[in-house]
Amino acid sequence: MKKRFITSIVLVLAMSIVLFNHDQSSANDKVMPAEGVSPKYSLVIHGGAGTITRDRLTADTEASIRAKLTEALEAGQTILADGGTSLDAIQASIMVMENSAHFNAGYGAVFTAEGRNELDAAIMDGSDLNAGAITGVTRVKNPITLARAVMDKSRHVMFSGSGAEEFAEDVGVEMVDPSYFYTERRWKSLQNFLERQKEKDTATVYEEKPAFKFGTVGAVAIDQHGNIAAGTSSGGMTGKMFGRVGDVPIIGAGTYANNKSCGVSATGHGEYFIRATVAHSICALMEYAGMSLEDAAQKIVMEQLVEMKGSGGIIAVDKDGNTALAFNSRGMYRGSVTNIKPLTTGIFDDE
Amino acid sequence: MKKRFITSIVLVLAMSIVLFNHDQSSANDKVMPAEGVSPKYSLVIHGGAGTITRDRLTADTEASIRAKLTEALEAGQTILADGGTSLDAIQASIMVMENSAHFNAGYGAVFTAEGRNELDAAIMDGSDLNAGAITGVTRVKNPITLARAVMDKSRHVMFSGSGAEEFAEDVGVEMVDPSYFYTERRWKSLQNFLERQKEKDTATVYEEKPAFKFGTVGAVAIDQHGNIAAGTSSGGMTGKMFGRVGDVPIIGAGTYANNKSCGVSATGHGEYFIRATVAHSICALMEYAGMSLEDAAQKIVMEQLVEMKGSGGIIAVDKDGNTALAFNSRGMYRGSVTNIKPLTTGIFDDE
Repeated sequence: MKKRFITSIVLVLAMSIVLFNHDQSSANDKVMPAEGVSPKYSLVIHGGAGTITRDRLTADTEASIRAKLTEALEAGQTILADGGTSLDAIQASIMVMENSAHFNAGYGAVFTAEGRNELDAAIMDGSDLNAGAITGVTRVKNPITLARAVMDKSRHVMFSGSGAEEFAEDVGVEMVDPSYFYTERRWKSLQNFLERQKEKDTATVYEEKPAFKFGTVGAVAIDQHGNIAAGTSSGGMTGKMFGRVGDVPIIGAGTYANNKSCGVSATGHGEYFIRATVAHSICALMEYAGMSLEDAAQKIVMEQLVEMKGSGGIIAVDKDGNTALAFNSRGMYRGSVTNIKPLTTGIFDDE
Repeated sequence: MKKRFITSIVLVLAMSIVLFNHDQSSANDKVMPAEGVSPKYSLVIHGGAGTITRDRLTADTEASIRAKLTEALEAGQTILADGGTSLDAIQASIMVMENSAHFNAGYGAVFTAEGRNELDAAIMDGSDLNAGAITGVTRVKNPITLARAVMDKSRHVMFSGSGAEEFAEDVGVEMVDPSYFYTERRWKSLQNFLERQKEKDTATVYEEKPAFKFGTVGAVAIDQHGNIAAGTSSGGMTGKMFGRVGDVPIIGAGTYANNKSCGVSATGHGEYFIRATVAHSICALMEYAGMSLEDAAQKIVMEQLVEMKGSGGIIAVDKDGNTALAFNSRGMYRGSVTNIKPLTTGIFDDE
């Protein structure tokens, strides 16, 4: 009799555990829909990744960068809130950053080893996989507008150098004198780079001063029509060799968008981002392996790129409006906003 | 008694069926290893895809093209059979085709709208995802050798235009005068293109005469050490606009290799191959979705590209030495050889 009583107690306990667990999962189920409301639109931006730490930025500079990131987000958000396209929104956000000397794209771009400013950009439309990319232009005020024109107005996807500029003039994209891109700060960076290079090989110089390596701006958005777009614009690496092409204009590496999965814009040591096909790999993990955007971004940025020693980060938006901002460097200038999440900006890795 | 006898008969019959089926599967098991033996090495090549039909080739030309494809395969096979690397093998195969006027790469490249020969090439090492790519060179005899030098001897992955040529001179890659690339046949093609373009827009000209659009050479191999390499070299499209970059030098689009999955070299209307990230998509379907090489190639080339109206094809080798040669055009110059399958060449879609 005592034995049967004990058995009953054990049974009741076992059932309680089962019921308790069941209740927990019900609670989760109830919470899910509330948390799972898809935003009507989402926008993420970056202004470059690298060794960005608190001791390297004055309070003034930090405030000024955050203000510019906010301005870039607001420029895109206004368009998305009005029912505009993700393509127009990301272009507006990127142009704000291209026009600011804080970021290595457009005005404020870094100098090549030969003292030139060679600019790259790319844009992609996730609704039809149309794309436009340019590399090595020296006279186009806003390279993202030329990438857009290549996508919209040419039968090609990518142009390089003076061929790209000839096309830019044909279609009326705003041109400037190469001197427009001169900033004292970037010129000093090049002198500093060249000084160090006298004593050490270039790889060592980049390793010792990673700030030379990075800088790119980008934006990714999904609009109220469900269309994803991604764009990236860059001045390359300080002291880069003449004619070097980074990951930015490589569709699938620095820039990719596909309504079936996600849109991605990358920033970092471009060579590694090309070799790992970063942007397309993240979207392919979603489409082919059924991974979430966050997991896919983690796998590529925090595992594969870290193994390869490829420093940098990505911003991304998926087809449900989820956002991801992942980087394996000390910091990344970044920001995001959706119709249900307030605008936020970030710089350091502890934010 | 009779009933028991019948029951016994039924039981024996049922057991026979089970045993018979078991025997069959045993037989299959015994056959499988023989059919499933992985080759020690595999090599596939292409010399371009397009509207290649029997009525457009004379018997002499066909024989001459098949002889050149055979020579290209043998050049690579010799290296693979000797235990050499897949990188050396594909480079040797590609150089044979670059040096032949039959193919649109190196000598015999098509002319741009402005009467220039602008060459692109890329190479990738599947063992460490290292890569080299060049676009828009006009004085490099064998563009694949420059792509290889960029991979092996520079800290960058991609160079364009005169920057690429400056690097080529620095590292001692063989240079030629631009006139080396002149062939009467390709010059006539350009004149024909320009003549048609006077009356029609360019897209219509390409549609009416698809031969203007295509031509590329490529090779993919796995060596006896299990390393995959892929390479591609191209003269672009007849009458292409100055500075246009096709899919060939875009890692992930025209060229990709990864020991975890496969190596791919593509040929076709480059813009679509960039937008569909063709080479990386095939490998990603293998790595992320567990698809076979053949299924992955079919899905991208015969479904996705056909939907997008992107004409062309691919050659590929996977990590087990399986080969795939898929194209949605009327023909593709191609060939393959492994240590257990004899050398074969193909041109038309009914071979």
